[in-house]
Amino acid sequence: MTTVLPTRPVPATADRILDATERLLARFGYNKTTVDDIATEAGVSKRTIYLHFAGKEEVALASIDRVVGRVTDQLRKIARTDAHPTDRVLDMLVARILGRFDSVRSYHQSLEDMFRSLRPTYLARRQRYFDAEAEVFAQVLEEGRRTRAFAITDPLAVAHDLLVATNGLLPYSLSPAEFGRRAEVAARASRIAGLLLDGLRRR
Amino acid sequence: MTTVLPTRPVPATADRILDATERLLARFGYNKTTVDDIATEAGVSKRTIYLHFAGKEEVALASIDRVVGRVTDQLRKIARTDAHPTDRVLDMLVARILGRFDSVRSYHQSLEDMFRSLRPTYLARRQRYFDAEAEVFAQVLEEGRRTRAFAITDPLAVAHDLLVATNGLLPYSLSPAEFGRRAEVAARASRIAGLLLDGLRRR
Repeated sequence: MTTVLPTRPVPATADRILDATERLLARFGYNKTTVDDIATEAGVSKRTIYLHFAGKEEVALASIDRVVGRVTDQLRKIARTDAHPTDRVLDMLVARILGRFDSVRSYHQSLEDMFRSLRPTYLARRQRYFDAEAEVFAQVLEEGRRTRAFAITDPLAVAHDLLVATNGLLPYSLSPAEFGRRAEVAARASRIAGLLLDGLRRR
Repeated sequence: MTTVLPTRPVPATADRILDATERLLARFGYNKTTVDDIATEAGVSKRTIYLHFAGKEEVALASIDRVVGRVTDQLRKIARTDAHPTDRVLDMLVARILGRFDSVRSYHQSLEDMFRSLRPTYLARRQRYFDAEAEVFAQVLEEGRRTRAFAITDPLAVAHDLLVATNGLLPYSLSPAEFGRRAEVAARASRIAGLLLDGLRRR
């Protein structure tokens, strides 16, 4: 008998540690949160934290990984629907912005000191996020290319262009003031996505 | 007799201080540069620096202001040409990316610690940059709206959308690795601008 393994096994303990981290980020911010605090909040020993993560920086990065992982799962769901490729790509572009926005909104103030402390590591790491997202977009773009909905030749390159064209609305690029204006971010994401998709459309 | 004043008078001393700052940023980075270093490099007294700027942070921000000010002047030049509005907006979008890229390329490594140290102040300040750029874009967009080159109703709102859609390529959003690949940044800026402009075009 074979056991079917989940594709992305996340040990419950790691998730509990990350949940605790997000709560502490919301309450105290990144700089004032210690590994001790995280252990207490998660109800695990400090040793358990270090079994899962190299340190506070790694916990914070893993929490960003988890946010982006969930958003990417959401994109896969939209990609699998049978809506028109144009509508799927539109929805996916808005979802990648609002999914992140909503996930971090409760602790967006603490993103400030987190991004300040982690900037170089974060910038290097996020290429992986974009690669994973681009793969999902490329599938739908390829489908639209085949059905002649889109006048494109290289779906993966176009996927990366679409990501860069919406990256200006990622949490990393928003000021605390902009985090207060969800409706504006949503409207802007939608309008930019609309322009891009009009650009892709075969005429 | 009236004296014609330049529209944006910049005292020569301030410019010398900023030139010196850029050289020191390239050599030592932001964190390791002191106001004393800047004074020595610029050949002025420390007191002179403080006559022009509140401190090191203000000098650094003024140096970003100057880069963006020059880029915005460049956009005004393109906006005044008699090329087709579509071509002008395309050129302006690429120019706002490459103008910044080329200005800071020699000290892009030191942008890392500068952006880390200045992040909240920088994010708040850059809204002013975008407002000034948007005004220039809006003029050309309005012209294209009148001549029916663009199917748009609100040129200023569209101008801001175009900026956000290319902000993912600003120095602030690039990793050191990406700074090594100018041709790639240029090609991406051009492709994104092309998609956006196809989206604006009346069909």
